[in-house]
Amino acid sequence: MHFNEKMGLMNLAIDIGNSMTKMAVLKDYQIVDTFRVESPDDTFFEQLFKKYPKIDSVIAVSTRADGDACIEGVKKRVNRYFWFDNNIKIPIKNLYQTPATLGHDRIAGAVAAAAVYPNSNILIVDFGTAITVDFVSADGEFVGGVISPGLKMRLRALNEFTQVLPLCNVPEQTYLTPQSTETAITSGVVNGIVFEIQGYIDRYMEKYPELRIVFTGGDGGYFSQRFKKPMMATRDLVVYGLNRILEYNVQITENNTDL
Amino acid sequence: MHFNEKMGLMNLAIDIGNSMTKMAVLKDYQIVDTFRVESPDDTFFEQLFKKYPKIDSVIAVSTRADGDACIEGVKKRVNRYFWFDNNIKIPIKNLYQTPATLGHDRIAGAVAAAAVYPNSNILIVDFGTAITVDFVSADGEFVGGVISPGLKMRLRALNEFTQVLPLCNVPEQTYLTPQSTETAITSGVVNGIVFEIQGYIDRYMEKYPELRIVFTGGDGGYFSQRFKKPMMATRDLVVYGLNRILEYNVQITENNTDL
Repeated sequence: MHFNEKMGLMNLAIDIGNSMTKMAVLKDYQIVDTFRVESPDDTFFEQLFKKYPKIDSVIAVSTRADGDACIEGVKKRVNRYFWFDNNIKIPIKNLYQTPATLGHDRIAGAVAAAAVYPNSNILIVDFGTAITVDFVSADGEFVGGVISPGLKMRLRALNEFTQVLPLCNVPEQTYLTPQSTETAITSGVVNGIVFEIQGYIDRYMEKYPELRIVFTGGDGGYFSQRFKKPMMATRDLVVYGLNRILEYNVQITENNTDL
Repeated sequence: MHFNEKMGLMNLAIDIGNSMTKMAVLKDYQIVDTFRVESPDDTFFEQLFKKYPKIDSVIAVSTRADGDACIEGVKKRVNRYFWFDNNIKIPIKNLYQTPATLGHDRIAGAVAAAAVYPNSNILIVDFGTAITVDFVSADGEFVGGVISPGLKMRLRALNEFTQVLPLCNVPEQTYLTPQSTETAITSGVVNGIVFEIQGYIDRYMEKYPELRIVFTGGDGGYFSQRFKKPMMATRDLVVYGLNRILEYNVQITENNTDL
């Protein structure tokens, strides 16, 4: 039985994204609580650790250039702090040729998906600031995948990179042939993403008819309703994966210590 | 026989886009010469009119906020100047509900496509700064369509709206499962656009099996190679349409004068 389970200790997984920092408190591989904060400050962490004093280990990942600068206040409060850089050990094989620039959130999502669907070919679609569509093989390998602009990024680009198009909000309804400029933009962006992801699903299913599909990211719920194909949709994939990687590294550390 | 044809006079069609001004010199509905200039100045027009002194009529359209300010030097050199605003007469019916904010380049493309494929249902995909996918019915109506970010806009957005992703160039080759960050972005953006447009083609062809497809815009040639479906691909659709609209308005003016 694992150390953390014996003592009832908890883990904190922190996913520092481009627009939002997502956090999860986990115990025995289960999420106890989650938080989404734009920029967590020391007061936030003080209250978090007051609420969950059993948090003993932390793992953090960032897709931002300044890394973990914004969570300095966390390190002093815990026994173990894991920073997800290229030296951290992961429980799947990484076939990416440029691992130094592979978003760690993508690896964490792959680790979580491979734990949920062992021995399965899995397509992971992360609808975040950028959209990533990654393939994890039945052999437990992160094979690779693509990056394209996310929902709000597309709406913003149409406004900022042209002189006349307005900034539109995410729509409730979409049309194939809209008849106003606002619906042209909102339907164009949403239909475009749906057709894009359907294109990937179709191509991969030609090769892997038993393909598992996982949707995640801030807009994962919004898009999961727009597909007929059954898929798992969770906003918590990355933090689940982070927790798996944390536990994996704790085990390695303990095994080494035991020698 | 038309006045212009009798005298050998020429038309100049000017399409002022977000990143480039495209011009065509036309005679008897045929393009004689084309130019693509970032910002044409008076010296440019002086040389143009020296080369083609028979240019008698001009029509201009703009997707930019400052309208036709950049072509002031043209007006004084011609007998007829038509500015494509909401008052200009067009030879197709416009079903758009917000015509005031409908890009006139989209209408001009629709006019040209309807002239090339009369009595046909037509899907017009303009791969410009933004991508537009517009439907013209067999009844000669501009029904509507969508707007989404163009190829270079997507590449730029991924770089400018995230902290860590590089600015990538348009790729020669793409992959379903790329294994480096640069190929992930370039394949992600290009595949995404291909799947998106294929999605529209599939949906419209379910309704209109005889659908005609027209690709245009600066990246139209690049993308036309990536589709199996036969389509007409031309960079000159908008200027062809502008010329049709010019001739249409000349005819109306002359008929009114004859009364």
